[in-house]
Amino acid sequence: MKVKLASNYGFCFGVKRAIKIAEEYKNSTTMGPLIHNQDEINRLKNDYNVGLYQDLKEVKDNDTIIIRTHGIPKNDLKILKEHNAKVINATCPFVTTPQQIVKKMSKEGYSILIFGDKEHPEVKGVASYGEKQDDVHIILDIEELKNITFKKNKIATVAQTTKKKEKYLEIINYLILRNKEVRVFNTICDATFENQDAAREISKEADVMIVIGGKHSSNTKQLHAICEENCKSSYLIENESEIEEKWFENKSLCGVTAGASTPDWIIQQVVKKIESI
Amino acid sequence: MKVKLASNYGFCFGVKRAIKIAEEYKNSTTMGPLIHNQDEINRLKNDYNVGLYQDLKEVKDNDTIIIRTHGIPKNDLKILKEHNAKVINATCPFVTTPQQIVKKMSKEGYSILIFGDKEHPEVKGVASYGEKQDDVHIILDIEELKNITFKKNKIATVAQTTKKKEKYLEIINYLILRNKEVRVFNTICDATFENQDAAREISKEADVMIVIGGKHSSNTKQLHAICEENCKSSYLIENESEIEEKWFENKSLCGVTAGASTPDWIIQQVVKKIESI
Repeated sequence: MKVKLASNYGFCFGVKRAIKIAEEYKNSTTMGPLIHNQDEINRLKNDYNVGLYQDLKEVKDNDTIIIRTHGIPKNDLKILKEHNAKVINATCPFVTTPQQIVKKMSKEGYSILIFGDKEHPEVKGVASYGEKQDDVHIILDIEELKNITFKKNKIATVAQTTKKKEKYLEIINYLILRNKEVRVFNTICDATFENQDAAREISKEADVMIVIGGKHSSNTKQLHAICEENCKSSYLIENESEIEEKWFENKSLCGVTAGASTPDWIIQQVVKKIESI
Repeated sequence: MKVKLASNYGFCFGVKRAIKIAEEYKNSTTMGPLIHNQDEINRLKNDYNVGLYQDLKEVKDNDTIIIRTHGIPKNDLKILKEHNAKVINATCPFVTTPQQIVKKMSKEGYSILIFGDKEHPEVKGVASYGEKQDDVHIILDIEELKNITFKKNKIATVAQTTKKKEKYLEIINYLILRNKEVRVFNTICDATFENQDAAREISKEADVMIVIGGKHSSNTKQLHAICEENCKSSYLIENESEIEEKWFENKSLCGVTAGASTPDWIIQQVVKKIESI
C-alpha cells in the first residue's frame, strides 16, 4: 500500500523540544505529565528514567524537576526553589511570551484579560504572572465578558496558545467598542491549525485515511472529523495493532496524520505496517 | 402642526464648543471654515467680525487665529507661531486625543496606522504628530492595508473620529492576525451615529419628517435616507423657505432632525414655520 504523510502532523515544536530536554536530563522528574500519551511517558521512564510527579507535595529536596510545555504558576516555581530543586524549564517559548506580557502589562497598569480555560495548566501559569490578581480575568466566552468589571479602561489581552483566533477576535471587538485602549497580543499558536490544514489537504487526495491518536483526545477527534469530510474511509487508531487489512482493499493511496500527542515512533510503526499490506 | 425634535440633532459637542469660542474672540480669523455652512460663517462675520483664511499664506503678523475642530498639522502651527499669531485652539478634544496618541506611540517605537481619509484635515493633523513620517500609514480600506509594509511588528491604531466602528474593527482584526502586538485606541466619536439613531427612532413615530441640512452634505443625506426607511414623507431642506404646506396635509406629527453642520437658529426658524401651519 502506498502511504503519504500529511505535511504537518503529530507533535508541535514545543512538545518536541520538551521531550528532547527530558531525554537530556536522565533521572529527572516532570512536574505533571509531559504529554497526554502514556506510551511516550513509559518510554521516557524506561529509556531515560524520567519520572513523573502529579503533585507538588511529592517533590523532594534537590530533585531535578522538568517544567512541561504548559509552564507552571509563579508560586509553584517558588515552592520548587524552596526545595532547592534543580529546575529545568521546558515551558514552550510560545507560553513564556504570554506569561511575560501579563507580568509587564500588569505592572504598567493595564487590566488583564486572558482568553482561555481557567482550569488549564497553561492558563493558570500565565494568569499567575499578573501583579494584581483581582484585575486578571479569564474567560472562554463573550458572555462571561459581560459580567466582568475591569478596574482600568485600558486592557491588555492574551490568549491561550491553542485557542481559535476567530473567537479571540470576537472578544477583542467587544472590548474595543467599550474601552479607550485595548492592547492586543496575538499569542495563539498555529501548530494545531497547521495539522488540521494539512489533514484537510491530504484527505482530499487519499482514498483511505488513517488518523493516529488517543480515542479521547479532542484534537485527534477533530482531525478525524476533518478527514471524514473529504474521505469517507477515515479511521482513528491509537497504534498499529488496530489496523485492519480490509480497509485498504481496492484503495491506492493511504494518507496518514496524527494528533498533537502522538509520538513519531508510533507513527512510524503504523506507516511500516500499512506499507507492508 | 405638532412638531417633535429628534433627541439628537445638528451640531456635535466639538462644533458647538468651537462656535462659542469664535463668539468669544471678536475680530479673530478662523484657519479654514469653522463649519460647512455658509449662513453660520456669515453670521459669525456679521455679528462678531470673525474672518476666514483659506490658506496659511494669508496669515499676517499678530493675527488672532482660531484653529477649527479638525485641528491642524504640527508644521502649520509652527508657521502660525512664526507669525507671532495669537493661536486660539478650538480643536475638538476628541481630535486632540488621537494627535497625542500618535505622538506618544510613535515615540515608543510603534508603527502607526490611521483609519481615515488622508485628504481630510483632521487626519492630516493627526498624522503630522507621528515622529517617523515614513512609518505613519493612512488607509480607508482593508485592501490598502495589504500593500503596506510596517517597519515594526507592533502597531498602534487610531481612527478618524467620524468613521464607522465596524470597518475599524475589520482593519484591526486583519492586523491582529498578522502582528505580534496591536494597540488599539478607540477614537471614534459617537456624535454622528447618535444623530442617526435618534433620526431612526423619531421617523418611526412621525408621519412626516423634515431633515434640515446641506443638499450636498453626506451626513444630511444619510439622515434623510434613514428617515425615508421609516417615513415615506421625508423631506430634505436647507432652510424654512423651502417648506411646502401640502407636505403636512392629513398629517398629525412632524419629526425634525438636522445634519451636523446645521446651526440651531436655522432649525428654530424651520420649527416655528411648521408649527404655524
